Amino acid sequence: MHRTVDFSQTRITGGFWKHKQALVRRVTTGAVYDRFSDTGRIDAFRFDWKPGQPSQPHFFWDSDVAKWMEGVAYQLAQKPDARLEKKIDDLVDLIEKNQCEDGYFNIFFTVVQPENRFTNRDWHELYCAGHLMEAAVAYYHATGKRKFLACMCRYADYIEKRFVIDDDVPFKTPGHEEIELALVKLYECTGEVRYLNLAKHFVDMRGRDEIRMPDWMDASYSQSHAPVREQRTAEGHAVRAMYLYCGMADVAYHTGDGELQAACEAIFDNVANKRMYITGGIGSSGAGEAFTVDYDLPNLISYTESCAALALALFANRMLRFGADSKYADVVERVIYNGFMSSLSLDGKSFFYQNPLEVMPRMHKRDISVRHRSVNLPPMQRQEVFACSCCPPNIVRFIPSIANLLYSEDGEVIYVHQFMQSVTTIERDGKMLVLEQVTRYPENGKVKIKLSGGDARVAVRIPGWFDGYKGETEKGYAYFDLRNGEEIDLDFTMKPVFIEARPEVVFDAGRYAVMRGPVLYCMEGADNGELLRDITLDSRARFKYGKHAVLGVPQLSVRAWRTVREPNAPLYRQKTQNKEKVDAILIPYYAFANRGESEMQVWHFVK
Amino acid sequence: MHRTVDFSQTRITGGFWKHKQALVRRVTTGAVYDRFSDTGRIDAFRFDWKPGQPSQPHFFWDSDVAKWMEGVAYQLAQKPDARLEKKIDDLVDLIEKNQCEDGYFNIFFTVVQPENRFTNRDWHELYCAGHLMEAAVAYYHATGKRKFLACMCRYADYIEKRFVIDDDVPFKTPGHEEIELALVKLYECTGEVRYLNLAKHFVDMRGRDEIRMPDWMDASYSQSHAPVREQRTAEGHAVRAMYLYCGMADVAYHTGDGELQAACEAIFDNVANKRMYITGGIGSSGAGEAFTVDYDLPNLISYTESCAALALALFANRMLRFGADSKYADVVERVIYNGFMSSLSLDGKSFFYQNPLEVMPRMHKRDISVRHRSVNLPPMQRQEVFACSCCPPNIVRFIPSIANLLYSEDGEVIYVHQFMQSVTTIERDGKMLVLEQVTRYPENGKVKIKLSGGDARVAVRIPGWFDGYKGETEKGYAYFDLRNGEEIDLDFTMKPVFIEARPEVVFDAGRYAVMRGPVLYCMEGADNGELLRDITLDSRARFKYGKHAVLGVPQLSVRAWRTVREPNAPLYRQKTQNKEKVDAILIPYYAFANRGESEMQVWHFVK
Repeated sequence: MHRTVDFSQTRITGGFWKHKQALVRRVTTGAVYDRFSDTGRIDAFRFDWKPGQPSQPHFFWDSDVAKWMEGVAYQLAQKPDARLEKKIDDLVDLIEKNQCEDGYFNIFFTVVQPENRFTNRDWHELYCAGHLMEAAVAYYHATGKRKFLACMCRYADYIEKRFVIDDDVPFKTPGHEEIELALVKLYECTGEVRYLNLAKHFVDMRGRDEIRMPDWMDASYSQSHAPVREQRTAEGHAVRAMYLYCGMADVAYHTGDGELQAACEAIFDNVANKRMYITGGIGSSGAGEAFTVDYDLPNLISYTESCAALALALFANRMLRFGADSKYADVVERVIYNGFMSSLSLDGKSFFYQNPLEVMPRMHKRDISVRHRSVNLPPMQRQEVFACSCCPPNIVRFIPSIANLLYSEDGEVIYVHQFMQSVTTIERDGKMLVLEQVTRYPENGKVKIKLSGGDARVAVRIPGWFDGYKGETEKGYAYFDLRNGEEIDLDFTMKPVFIEARPEVVFDAGRYAVMRGPVLYCMEGADNGELLRDITLDSRARFKYGKHAVLGVPQLSVRAWRTVREPNAPLYRQKTQNKEKVDAILIPYYAFANRGESEMQVWHFVK
Repeated sequence: MHRTVDFSQTRITGGFWKHKQALVRRVTTGAVYDRFSDTGRIDAFRFDWKPGQPSQPHFFWDSDVAKWMEGVAYQLAQKPDARLEKKIDDLVDLIEKNQCEDGYFNIFFTVVQPENRFTNRDWHELYCAGHLMEAAVAYYHATGKRKFLACMCRYADYIEKRFVIDDDVPFKTPGHEEIELALVKLYECTGEVRYLNLAKHFVDMRGRDEIRMPDWMDASYSQSHAPVREQRTAEGHAVRAMYLYCGMADVAYHTGDGELQAACEAIFDNVANKRMYITGGIGSSGAGEAFTVDYDLPNLISYTESCAALALALFANRMLRFGADSKYADVVERVIYNGFMSSLSLDGKSFFYQNPLEVMPRMHKRDISVRHRSVNLPPMQRQEVFACSCCPPNIVRFIPSIANLLYSEDGEVIYVHQFMQSVTTIERDGKMLVLEQVTRYPENGKVKIKLSGGDARVAVRIPGWFDGYKGETEKGYAYFDLRNGEEIDLDFTMKPVFIEARPEVVFDAGRYAVMRGPVLYCMEGADNGELLRDITLDSRARFKYGKHAVLGVPQLSVRAWRTVREPNAPLYRQKTQNKEKVDAILIPYYAFANRGESEMQVWHFVK
């Protein structure tokens, strides 16, 4: 088995991710905290809300703040910050103070509806517990402080008592998964095997019971339609699904459960080969925020929640522990530069919950004579505040720990999965090996990997988008035996290419996306005027690569045609060739929607 | 002003419409009656429903049966049928028997909720009254029997009393228009000017009052957002809108109200130039069954109700009375061969309420983990029974009276608007002119128009789709001075052509429709296999015109390409040219969905 090299062993020293980490540290972390303060989420930890007061705690508020705490812990692990640490300590004091005698902790079910503790599977108690446990583990690793961890161990013990020992709860598994992977982290941190067993228990029980579902959902909504070892496709609510699959992979990793691993592998393949947008976004339907059926990937109404995208990266990265295969790391790469990165505005202050692949402001104005909608369309702009605020703090914890995605190792080989300007220290037989990546990836594909501190076999992923590698590869990795001080010098030349989808993806039929290396490009109305579907890119023209004057991000321009405007043309007429030449401007998909309401398009006509 | 030549002056003697009229007479009329019997709609006229019994009358049931009666009357006008006439007489006896003392007639508001008579604008009382009046007029014309007409005059008198003389009803105008045009028919039939004035009253009052709308709708839903003379765009519920515009045109026609006529002209242009599908279907959104915004014409989720399509033809035909302009008759033609004709199955037994422009069965299966839908999609198959059954009886009245669309005349000129194998008698200065059309239209474009019984000036519409006419035209009509016994010999050669939409119609961008003469063609999965969007038609290949072996309708075949199936191709990859040649089969749009669930597509990729 392979071990993921923990992000804390890596320092990102430049480039794309250093910039994003600085942005999260400087802007996003505070912005999310402020919104959480404004909405009462922080004060809710005082447990002093009374009926009739504003800001009644919601049953998922604990998890929002917990994810923020986890994200801050990851930042503290890299760079101390007394002010931020104090914020967490204050929250931890409140958690300790307000935790119930028996170990239970949940704001809503202590302050608002104490009579309903553990009565409804879909009220997110175990989900909140999981996020608090992840935060506690992260904070312990970052600071060595045990108080938060101790609280969460007590809570885990209480959960074990109720769900396993006494078995007196009217449901068997969480409606929203998360606690499974969190309990494995608690086990990894404390060595307490009961927590691994409890994670396994929740994984094993899923899909075994007759569950009374609310009328509006099917059992597959919460992946409870079959025992997990029998599942082969990704179903239901995409975030729940991905958190479950992470937990399944974790349990399989620690227990050597081949059946569970096989289920994870099949589900991953189903996602990557049939149910994933070109952005790495998942969840094709707003109804249920859910997976639908194979190849159902409409662009205009994609749901593609930010949380689901990053959770897919977490799942794929976990799969690399069963052996290096570039299909996993390729998906990680697809997600982090596209469907995840789009969720954060360039100024770091606002967020997408849904990350659409096409935006048509005109469609949002269609149902003018009635108050209801004929189509669920994603919002066109990022927002600073959400009622359901799972995504913003997920960004706060994901970007600071992005280096978790870089390396794994198995005692023999160090596997290089992603490319980021960075320095990483890996202990091997008492020696400290240092791996340094010198690269401006994804600006260009030149990557130098220097080894020092000893000799090692290093395997480097050849990106799936690169077809120019001449050497031998095994499952997408090239292997190098490096001596102390040697380096690998690679050049994954990036040129813009047109990408097609399988013909089953009917909404992409006849259209092509533009990618340059791992980065997907899109057109925006702000650069190209309205009616983006009327633009046909010239496949024989050369793309020009440059820098966008307003956004400061890369841009591509290419020759194209669009219809000459004739105000008096009839609505329908015989096919004409009345086209004029224009230059189309494309920007990275992750940079769209930073200039107000505008059309956006990922899949283009090409001639 | 021009006069529409009444359908009763014409006998359809062969071809497309004779076949459809025979089908309606032989199959559809009985099928609709049987469904109305099954559902209690016929027995409801006994007024003996009691609480607790099944088949509680609905407040729009009167209108369903009235439209069926009107359709039967049109059939009786052409060919006596004692059995059918008896059915109507029985219903008329019940209407007379159960009409209230004061003249009011409505099943629901007499039997179920008598306390709520004329209390709610949106409960369709005046709409039902209108359809009963239309039926009564038609039945009087067909049989000379006055009983039904007398009942409806009494009802109209009562409505005048309540809405004008006493003015004691808590609303001023019908929520669902229809009575306006019906009152004009009553006026035309009886000569009683009070009925015209009442129609004008309802037209004039609309949009003048503050109306308390239900929460879910805007005033535009029922065209009440502005006084009608100020309206310039088609808004809200498409059927309501069209019935109103018909009524407005009727009032303008009889009163010479230029402002009203100008509003009708502007609204017609808005529909024909910006809000109409290539089928002639209207109503782009299922939410509110409504018009939306200019150029918003998505195919997969089009609403395009059958009733709205035929009402557009009725409206356009009425506009021809203000002067011949082929833009009106072109729309009539577009509707009757496409978006209207699709509503009836080839066997005459089942019906579309919505007439979609694209069918993707896979989309209907997408929301599998939840019970609600992310997209309102039209049904894929015609049905025999509807709870809301406005469309089937509308077909029963529209097809038998289709010859209303053929001619108008102004004392000087006889205008030929449509082409149907037929014989028509027009009285002129005491002489009986006979116009005979010899044509197999729309099978081909050869049309002979023979005049006998005297001399006349005849104007013939040159179809908008035909670009080969060499002679002079005025507003799309060619003028001929014919002597007794002379004929006009025209050949509107039909060849299949690719049609494009304006670029603002984003859902048609990059795609082309195929028309042959007035008939729109489509591809079905039943002929072409699944993934129709993956088929690219070859614009340089010749279409072959023939007869469909299974359906017996015309078909076109043309060379095309589709992706070679590679089971292991990745979901996304660099653009390939891996296409194979195939023959694509197209059938008339009106004939789709007669072979079970299947993909269907109107707008195709073409290279």
